[in-house]
Amino acid sequence: MKRDIVRVGLLGMGTVGTGVMRILDDNAENITRKIGCPLRIEKILVRDLSKTRRLSVDSALFTTDVADILDNPNIDIVVELMGGERPAKEYILEAMRKGKHVVTANKDVVAKYGKELFETAEKYHIDLLFEASVGGGIPIIRPLKQCLAANKIQEIIGIVNGTTNYMLTKMSQEGCDFDSVLKEAQAKGYAESDPTADVGGLDAARKIAILASIAFGTRVSVDDVYVEGITNITPEDIAYAKELGFVIKLLGIAKEVNGEVEVRVHPAFIPQTHPLAAVNDVFNAIFVKGDAVGEAMFYGRGAGEMPTASAVTADVIDVARDIVHGVSSRILCTCFVTKPIRSMEEVPSSFYIRLLALDRPGVLAVIAGAFGSHGVSLQSVIQKRKVNSDAEVVLVTNAVAEKNMRNALRMIELGDVVREIGSVIRVEGGNLE
Amino acid sequence: MKRDIVRVGLLGMGTVGTGVMRILDDNAENITRKIGCPLRIEKILVRDLSKTRRLSVDSALFTTDVADILDNPNIDIVVELMGGERPAKEYILEAMRKGKHVVTANKDVVAKYGKELFETAEKYHIDLLFEASVGGGIPIIRPLKQCLAANKIQEIIGIVNGTTNYMLTKMSQEGCDFDSVLKEAQAKGYAESDPTADVGGLDAARKIAILASIAFGTRVSVDDVYVEGITNITPEDIAYAKELGFVIKLLGIAKEVNGEVEVRVHPAFIPQTHPLAAVNDVFNAIFVKGDAVGEAMFYGRGAGEMPTASAVTADVIDVARDIVHGVSSRILCTCFVTKPIRSMEEVPSSFYIRLLALDRPGVLAVIAGAFGSHGVSLQSVIQKRKVNSDAEVVLVTNAVAEKNMRNALRMIELGDVVREIGSVIRVEGGNLE
Repeated sequence: MKRDIVRVGLLGMGTVGTGVMRILDDNAENITRKIGCPLRIEKILVRDLSKTRRLSVDSALFTTDVADILDNPNIDIVVELMGGERPAKEYILEAMRKGKHVVTANKDVVAKYGKELFETAEKYHIDLLFEASVGGGIPIIRPLKQCLAANKIQEIIGIVNGTTNYMLTKMSQEGCDFDSVLKEAQAKGYAESDPTADVGGLDAARKIAILASIAFGTRVSVDDVYVEGITNITPEDIAYAKELGFVIKLLGIAKEVNGEVEVRVHPAFIPQTHPLAAVNDVFNAIFVKGDAVGEAMFYGRGAGEMPTASAVTADVIDVARDIVHGVSSRILCTCFVTKPIRSMEEVPSSFYIRLLALDRPGVLAVIAGAFGSHGVSLQSVIQKRKVNSDAEVVLVTNAVAEKNMRNALRMIELGDVVREIGSVIRVEGGNLE
Repeated sequence: MKRDIVRVGLLGMGTVGTGVMRILDDNAENITRKIGCPLRIEKILVRDLSKTRRLSVDSALFTTDVADILDNPNIDIVVELMGGERPAKEYILEAMRKGKHVVTANKDVVAKYGKELFETAEKYHIDLLFEASVGGGIPIIRPLKQCLAANKIQEIIGIVNGTTNYMLTKMSQEGCDFDSVLKEAQAKGYAESDPTADVGGLDAARKIAILASIAFGTRVSVDDVYVEGITNITPEDIAYAKELGFVIKLLGIAKEVNGEVEVRVHPAFIPQTHPLAAVNDVFNAIFVKGDAVGEAMFYGRGAGEMPTASAVTADVIDVARDIVHGVSSRILCTCFVTKPIRSMEEVPSSFYIRLLALDRPGVLAVIAGAFGSHGVSLQSVIQKRKVNSDAEVVLVTNAVAEKNMRNALRMIELGDVVREIGSVIRVEGGNLE
């Protein structure tokens, strides 16, 4: 099937759409060579035809009617860049039903409706690619599905949200607090005016759900992810982390342990020597452990116009190569089995705990006793500072199941020697188990 | 074309071959699901049938006659793991002529005979994959060819030789010298008894030639690479690097500048804050800059039985998927154009220079004058130590063309104030141009 041209319809012409247009323009010659024929943008769905755009685009390409793309028999590939669940999901499904291949950057839809999307792609022999949904420009979906396909993946730890990584980096480097750094991030455009999905961990949860699904070959939904955000991280915690040889990062973590999948997003201490510790500012990185490859890491810009457009356009090129070679659905859903999600209660972690205790003899013995009675042993203790009349005590525990830690903390709260449990942060990236 | 099975012939059953067998055994079920049918090792070419092997393999699989593989009509994929140029290259070509797809880990052959191999693959509609030839288990060939296909790649900087990275890490962490750390590396099996190809930079040169060819779409041969090894690196240089905020790494560097390709391997100072600076021990990493993706990095184990086997097996899985879907040669050679190689003389670098000068007034003025007269300006100067009766002077220059630096050094050598130019090491990873 010799092709003269491959035609693309864009749903959305915001930041990423503009980036895609720019790449197709700047690197047209090379892209044509790689595919074997030119790519052409045939139609672009926009909300407002009269809007002034940063890029000069032939206005005849714009339409406000999605049928001009979905029902257009000339269009081979639909690129969905609208974001959000609705109407993006319906458009993607409809495009596939009409025999069009789909590229999407939409983590909301992929994380929530992956099963339905892939079943439809399979039924209609469609390519459905979504590299840009996780890690922006960083190649991670294709590496997991292809380059590491020989491995049994054991663990994925990702810094997959640029907003929070920028904030934690700033807090760490400049000692400022959460609220002031959030304001700065908003001013710079790194955080949205409603930052809840970022700082609360939901954005990272969607991404780690997608990665876990691919890594472990079982459907992991965003609802399976245990989520804690970074809103409670204080400059004190960051200073103690540094003193103890750690940095604090918001991590998406997915592991397979004895056939069960644990999947969670929370801030964590990681050793300063861990490859993820050097991932700063808006950069993202995904650390992968496989039975054959050992440790690997993928690093780059997790968001932004051009990095995200890089991933989207690469997917478009890949689909176009398939079209030129007359093949489709080479690699679709890899969720072949169903593995149970491990209860968070059972997940073992080492913990950093900062608390304010009465400043009198025997208090530390009471605290250590409460931990000990729940099987929590201590790795290190720092007590050097007074806050008002209380002693600030910082503890790092050895690995213990979440439920034991919760019970120990409850016992301490009910007792009368600890005024306040300030922070409880898990420690990751060591050799805990 | 529905397939019941895909059959593989292995050329070589050394370390990597054993790793491939182990993976196919350990992860058989998952690999079968990913391909859509099972993979089976049909024949294995070995030198010695009677050799005791670490893995128990049905002895009927072994043969010492390559024709049992190349002329075997049942075999779909030939996996070349012999290493070296001969007879590996001929076997690869012959396999393709017989219509067999080829997976190889052989950087020698790919770096030297890439053009011939790919022309043959194209002629016979063959898949030819070589992910393991660079970076061991690290996904880098496929990411460059597919995931970053939308980019104009501007720069690749790689730590692509594990032996030298282990040695430099040890020298840096423990202050020991080249010879003692080489002995230790040999004792641990990280360096070969003849370490020339590693410490001399040739191994890295082969890999950066392969990466440059893919990144810039032009055939770069190992002969195009300017090569310096690490044999002259001293503990003093490493200590000064640390003091100045750098680490020393053996880098493979490839850049496209104004349509010309520069490609070189040499030790270099890189800033401690550069992502490559934290890549230690036997780990490898490849740092890539593209016009859309910005900075990205790929990190992992660059050698070893299982990591290399991970990459080889992934390639085999990918070819098998193509066979099952009845497609081939989806992605072959991407060297579409011919770009000139930039003369090393013209390459601009910042330099670290350590020299011994007479310890008397006005000497620094003479040295600075010699540099100045060749357009070399100084970024920093350290003079704090005496070696015998001489003053040790350490200079870091601003970026200057290689030829200017060479001329300045010649002038200094011919003069009478400098006793010895101890070290001249380029500085990379900043914003020099």
